[in-house]
Amino acid sequence: MVDRIYNFSPGPAVLPYEVLEQASRDVVNFQGLGMGLIEVSHRSKQFIAVMDEAEALLRELMGIPDNYKVLFLQGGASSQFFMVPMNLLGPGKKATYLNTGTWAKKAIKEAKLFGEVEVAYSSEEQNFIRVPKQGEYTVSPDSEYLYLVSNNTIYGTQFPEFPVVEKMMVCDMSSDILSRPFDVSRFGLIFAGAQKNLGPAGVTIVVIREDLLDRAPATTPTMLNYKTHADKGSMFNTPPCFAVYVVGLVLKWLKGIGGVPAIDRINREKAALLYAKIDESDYYRGHAEPASRSLMNVTFNLATPALEAKFVAEAEAIGLNGLKGHRSIGGCRASIYNAFPSEGVAKLVSFMSEFEKANPV
Amino acid sequence: MVDRIYNFSPGPAVLPYEVLEQASRDVVNFQGLGMGLIEVSHRSKQFIAVMDEAEALLRELMGIPDNYKVLFLQGGASSQFFMVPMNLLGPGKKATYLNTGTWAKKAIKEAKLFGEVEVAYSSEEQNFIRVPKQGEYTVSPDSEYLYLVSNNTIYGTQFPEFPVVEKMMVCDMSSDILSRPFDVSRFGLIFAGAQKNLGPAGVTIVVIREDLLDRAPATTPTMLNYKTHADKGSMFNTPPCFAVYVVGLVLKWLKGIGGVPAIDRINREKAALLYAKIDESDYYRGHAEPASRSLMNVTFNLATPALEAKFVAEAEAIGLNGLKGHRSIGGCRASIYNAFPSEGVAKLVSFMSEFEKANPV
Repeated sequence: MVDRIYNFSPGPAVLPYEVLEQASRDVVNFQGLGMGLIEVSHRSKQFIAVMDEAEALLRELMGIPDNYKVLFLQGGASSQFFMVPMNLLGPGKKATYLNTGTWAKKAIKEAKLFGEVEVAYSSEEQNFIRVPKQGEYTVSPDSEYLYLVSNNTIYGTQFPEFPVVEKMMVCDMSSDILSRPFDVSRFGLIFAGAQKNLGPAGVTIVVIREDLLDRAPATTPTMLNYKTHADKGSMFNTPPCFAVYVVGLVLKWLKGIGGVPAIDRINREKAALLYAKIDESDYYRGHAEPASRSLMNVTFNLATPALEAKFVAEAEAIGLNGLKGHRSIGGCRASIYNAFPSEGVAKLVSFMSEFEKANPV
Repeated sequence: MVDRIYNFSPGPAVLPYEVLEQASRDVVNFQGLGMGLIEVSHRSKQFIAVMDEAEALLRELMGIPDNYKVLFLQGGASSQFFMVPMNLLGPGKKATYLNTGTWAKKAIKEAKLFGEVEVAYSSEEQNFIRVPKQGEYTVSPDSEYLYLVSNNTIYGTQFPEFPVVEKMMVCDMSSDILSRPFDVSRFGLIFAGAQKNLGPAGVTIVVIREDLLDRAPATTPTMLNYKTHADKGSMFNTPPCFAVYVVGLVLKWLKGIGGVPAIDRINREKAALLYAKIDESDYYRGHAEPASRSLMNVTFNLATPALEAKFVAEAEAIGLNGLKGHRSIGGCRASIYNAFPSEGVAKLVSFMSEFEKANPV
């Protein structure tokens, strides 16, 4: 094994080492075919098996009901910001959005191009330190869906549980998909860019309830209509083969360690260690309100930006990489997705103690 | 080196072996960082260097003038079919299309959603066996652009030289980009899916003249406006990092063997060998008219579908893979893109002679 650092990057992010090793082998010679994985035709039986297995594993791990389609698309979660309202809204139609951070705001902007948007809640004036509790907002009866971002990567907040509403929900789960169990059937559509919990950048997973596939206006470009991809098993055009393949490997790894219940337990333990350290003194101050804390992205500040810069640099020097916070809020951020090892969290916690001792304020 | 087959697949297609070896190493540990290439943040200086180098190499190899932007997008060439007219047309605006095959037809369908389409030429009734010569069609004075597909993968036809027209051209070069020299300045926009001559599936190259970046209507979704990506150096959202990185490796390889003039010579030699074999007797019959023959995809038929199936199966048994023609025209197809080795063509030609002897009709 190569000398690995602990990669706290918010995405693209750390992947299981066994996944990288397998990908490394398959890139030059896939299944002994005498071709690398990235040279194999997407119409070959070998690659079709790759797609089928990735879908089957995702269905199994997430418990996706039969009346949902799984799509492997391109364009990132950012493309879902407009594809969702392009397919589900239209003139005179309304949707409800919860504004809990940068990605929600971007989605709201795109939705306004296609219909009426009701922003039922916003924590923007509080610098997005929290997500709403049940009952803090209402969804209009004539709204098509309630849109939310389950985990806010930049601010380090997360819905501890999903809203209970009569409307179907549409959820951007880019940064916490497969991190904890939940009931898919309460959602009309779930999407996630791969590069946090699923695999490399370049593929976006969309899970969509079948009855929503017929809602796109006739003027929708072929590639932007979910139905196009649902009807062709995500093979209407050439899929991002390598990214889908690595997602399959990550899902196999996740199944191997016990699936979502197991990773949920591990994720809670990792986050608890870090938050305990933050809460222990005033030296490190968490950005998010405790009730809204993310199990995936732990955001915190030190006394001054200068001290934060020193913290990040010294951490990097001992192999704790990528701890600088997002430019929009500064401070520090430890992204500890599914594949981030517990040992790395333990090492960060002990570094935090040492740094605090060595740099009193 | 592993035991390689000769991969005649139309795309995803064969890549240089040294590219695969480098990718294999970098997937587990990129530049000794202790992280795999697919784990590195797209905002890291290491990955920004990957993007910058890929762009610089493309500019150098294609001779792209300074007033053009190079974009690395997702969604395949199929997404360009609608993005081009979405950005460049609008109510009351017209564009001219040359219908030379399946991909041109699909582009025409999408363009009709955004403006008036003038189909100035079509070889559809002749089963797309040819592309038009200069003077066989006219472009209306009020047309915004002339759209063409430089190489038609399915039918094995290619424009031997580009049209000479007053209007700017928009060209789908997915299957022959970087295969031969040409003057970029005659085009307003060039695009190419990567999975034939550039790298793995999952990234699409767009080369766009800067003055075209301001034409998109205000209602264009952010991700579908070329300007969004041009302004952010293709980093508005997370790019398909691995695919861009492999494109960079392929471009480095191409530069190393002498760039476009060198590969142009090699491509002509490879195709000449195959077409000479086809023309030698009536046993193999080329699909395309000789003047429209593609240097990238060589399409031919044998006497019967049964004989074609036997040919494909026996070829595969000796390591000549992927020779089955596209389902829409049947027969055989040898895709011999830039990275396809000359030895593989020689081996196919000698197999064709043996097969002919062993299976007289």
